[in-house]
Amino acid sequence: MKTKMINMNPSQLLILVFTIFIIIGTIFLKLPWATTTSISWWDALFTATSAMTVTGLAVVDTETAYTLFGEIVIVSLIQLGGLGIMSFAVLIFMVLGKKIGFRERILVQQSMNQTSLGGVVQLVRNLFFFSLVIEFIAMVLLSLRWVPELGWSKGIYYSFFHSISAFNNAGFALWSDGLSRYVGDPIINIVITLLFIIGGLGFTVLADLKSKDTFRKLSLHSKIMIVGTFSINIVAMLFIFILEYGNPNTLGSLSLVEKWWASYFQAVTTRTAGFNSLDIGSLSDPTIHFMILLMFVGAGSASTGGGIKLTTFIVIVLAVVTYLKGKKEIVVARRTVAETIIFRSLAITMISLTLIFLAIFVLTITEEAAFLPIVFEVVSAFGTVGLSMGITGTLSIIGKLVIIIVMFAGKLGPLTFAFSLARQEKSKIRYPQEDVLTG
Amino acid sequence: MKTKMINMNPSQLLILVFTIFIIIGTIFLKLPWATTTSISWWDALFTATSAMTVTGLAVVDTETAYTLFGEIVIVSLIQLGGLGIMSFAVLIFMVLGKKIGFRERILVQQSMNQTSLGGVVQLVRNLFFFSLVIEFIAMVLLSLRWVPELGWSKGIYYSFFHSISAFNNAGFALWSDGLSRYVGDPIINIVITLLFIIGGLGFTVLADLKSKDTFRKLSLHSKIMIVGTFSINIVAMLFIFILEYGNPNTLGSLSLVEKWWASYFQAVTTRTAGFNSLDIGSLSDPTIHFMILLMFVGAGSASTGGGIKLTTFIVIVLAVVTYLKGKKEIVVARRTVAETIIFRSLAITMISLTLIFLAIFVLTITEEAAFLPIVFEVVSAFGTVGLSMGITGTLSIIGKLVIIIVMFAGKLGPLTFAFSLARQEKSKIRYPQEDVLTG
Ligand SMILES: [K+]
Ligand SMILES: [K+]
Repeated sequence: MKTKMINMNPSQLLILVFTIFIIIGTIFLKLPWATTTSISWWDALFTATSAMTVTGLAVVDTETAYTLFGEIVIVSLIQLGGLGIMSFAVLIFMVLGKKIGFRERILVQQSMNQTSLGGVVQLVRNLFFFSLVIEFIAMVLLSLRWVPELGWSKGIYYSFFHSISAFNNAGFALWSDGLSRYVGDPIINIVITLLFIIGGLGFTVLADLKSKDTFRKLSLHSKIMIVGTFSINIVAMLFIFILEYGNPNTLGSLSLVEKWWASYFQAVTTRTAGFNSLDIGSLSDPTIHFMILLMFVGAGSASTGGGIKLTTFIVIVLAVVTYLKGKKEIVVARRTVAETIIFRSLAITMISLTLIFLAIFVLTITEEAAFLPIVFEVVSAFGTVGLSMGITGTLSIIGKLVIIIVMFAGKLGPLTFAFSLARQEKSKIRYPQEDVLTG
Repeated sequence: MKTKMINMNPSQLLILVFTIFIIIGTIFLKLPWATTTSISWWDALFTATSAMTVTGLAVVDTETAYTLFGEIVIVSLIQLGGLGIMSFAVLIFMVLGKKIGFRERILVQQSMNQTSLGGVVQLVRNLFFFSLVIEFIAMVLLSLRWVPELGWSKGIYYSFFHSISAFNNAGFALWSDGLSRYVGDPIINIVITLLFIIGGLGFTVLADLKSKDTFRKLSLHSKIMIVGTFSINIVAMLFIFILEYGNPNTLGSLSLVEKWWASYFQAVTTRTAGFNSLDIGSLSDPTIHFMILLMFVGAGSASTGGGIKLTTFIVIVLAVVTYLKGKKEIVVARRTVAETIIFRSLAITMISLTLIFLAIFVLTITEEAAFLPIVFEVVSAFGTVGLSMGITGTLSIIGKLVIIIVMFAGKLGPLTFAFSLARQEKSKIRYPQEDVLTG
């Protein structure tokens, strides 16, 4: 077995490790004391996959179906999945004082989607430091809001659960209607969204931000991520505000201030966090259509999010614009983007579209649901978003299996594919070249 | 004006000429003696665009709304649009004995999507020869079936109309339910499908087939088109047969032989021809979903069809497979495909997806229809297919305008974009390089 594992390539090993953790999670969630009433093996597998891939789609109501033990299993899977098992592995090596070899670095490099081996150990250290500090601060802030409302033990526990769920972009909430009851609450809106926006930028960006003192000194990747995240969130907020303004089931019944809070929240949550403060099933078709694009694009590379990744999307857009202008090289902020990055982005996008297409195809056969909720569900799973128009609970067994596969591929696929695509290639340099993480 | 036209680039001129013909067609169709009851300017514009772009979407019932004069206008627009106005222009130059200059060659080159100027005149000659001969033979064959049924004048006229409509992949039929009444009729099935399959291969392939005596000697483009067309049609036929086998509103009520005829017909018609022998609105969701992909892909370059084109699709698939294998160059039939072709294919695909996304977005706002019929309508317009789940007649004015723009862009867009993208680039040769037409 040991020799076999050594013969595996890192992608296969990563998939194996994720699978093992999901199986362990499934067994834990199937234990009698994990649930209030017995759930099926399929539902346990679905929930474990959803938690481990930080998706947040729920076949059973997280609020009522699971005991405290079950919820702890879920939040543990979220933390494991979010930070990446591989970085855990490196941490264990570090703690045990073992030398971190080339092989382990490759694994972490892949799970963090890094293109160079240098600084991997440092990255993992920073990753843990950031995560724990940010989650702790958020827990304190949320406690200020929830302890007075829910009492000490429940208030602190809810703060603990939701800060981990939010920072890892998992989207699991302990209320059946998500965070709808806090639709106009500034503290909840700000803390939760800041958590998943920071988590969604990716740890490389955070590390970069920590070590540089001006925006100009940041890496190309960080610049694209920060400007891209800001722009897409603004656009999404305006779209949702305008499209839903008169919808009586969503923004229509809210005050103007609440309308803005809700538009902001739904705009930033859709690319991968998956929390909701509006009823997704009541949104209008154009909003849903637009959200499908946001979910497909997703968050940043080396972040807790899914999707093809924001940088992949931006590289594709820039590639098309560049070629329409008849230019030969993509230039951003006085840097050119290598051709290999474009091909990688193309491959990621097309593989993702193929996966989504096939999943929708199967679901249109196996499910009774209409077309739009099916498309929404599949893209939500692929982007590890976790929003749903309400069909998750009604999925057939084949439907659940398809969504499980899509969540798994959404979390690991583009990344592992990207790794198998990574190649060194010499190119004629005009501007100095610099990598952009894609997928 | 003349100097301005000379300053236009070929793409702009092509768009201008198409626009002028559509406007003329609109005016003709708005004439009192073109219709049985008055139609709006919007409906006249829609019909003219639909005919000129050989789409076949109909806001009014072609069978009852138009007089013989109106139908002649429509079939003329189909022939003009199908063969390409630019080749007509060259023909006029030839007939008038004028020298065919570089400028005119460029225009034809573009409307035929050729990558070299050589053989353009020859191509146009062949194009006219092929078209007229094939349309005439088809008319005779269809007359054998329709003269006994409909009498001499109506029988010959219907044969004339449908042979032009089929060869140009226009999809206009003179029966409200398309060719549903001939669902099991071998002559109609074979003649009509052969017409649009031949038309959909593209004239370069036909010319190539005429001048070469073995398959091996054919150009890479012809090989890809022939094998690709054959394969995709077989797959589509099997899918439709299996998916619709038990659907009582489509295949379910037919005999086994009729089931196969209908599956074959619907499989080959969907990529761009747009005739139907089944009720599209009654097809099951998985079939519709699969057909959306077929319509997006479309027919061959330099053919009468639309879509991103079969070769573009194949190049994208090969590019992804090649990079997944870690290889550097796409190799097909001992030929490599140039990188510029891949970038062009990427650009065509992404621009097309963007256009489709935006059109769907607008229609979800302006129309009452469900999501799936809207997606189907937009992709059908983009692929100049003309199939509809039945919402064409109920479109709002904005909805009609959007579909008009998409039909126009579907016919001219990818092609004109492709031209503006065409670049010469030197590349390291392993196998000799050869072009594949994309878009
Ligand atoms: K999520
Ligand atoms: K058509």
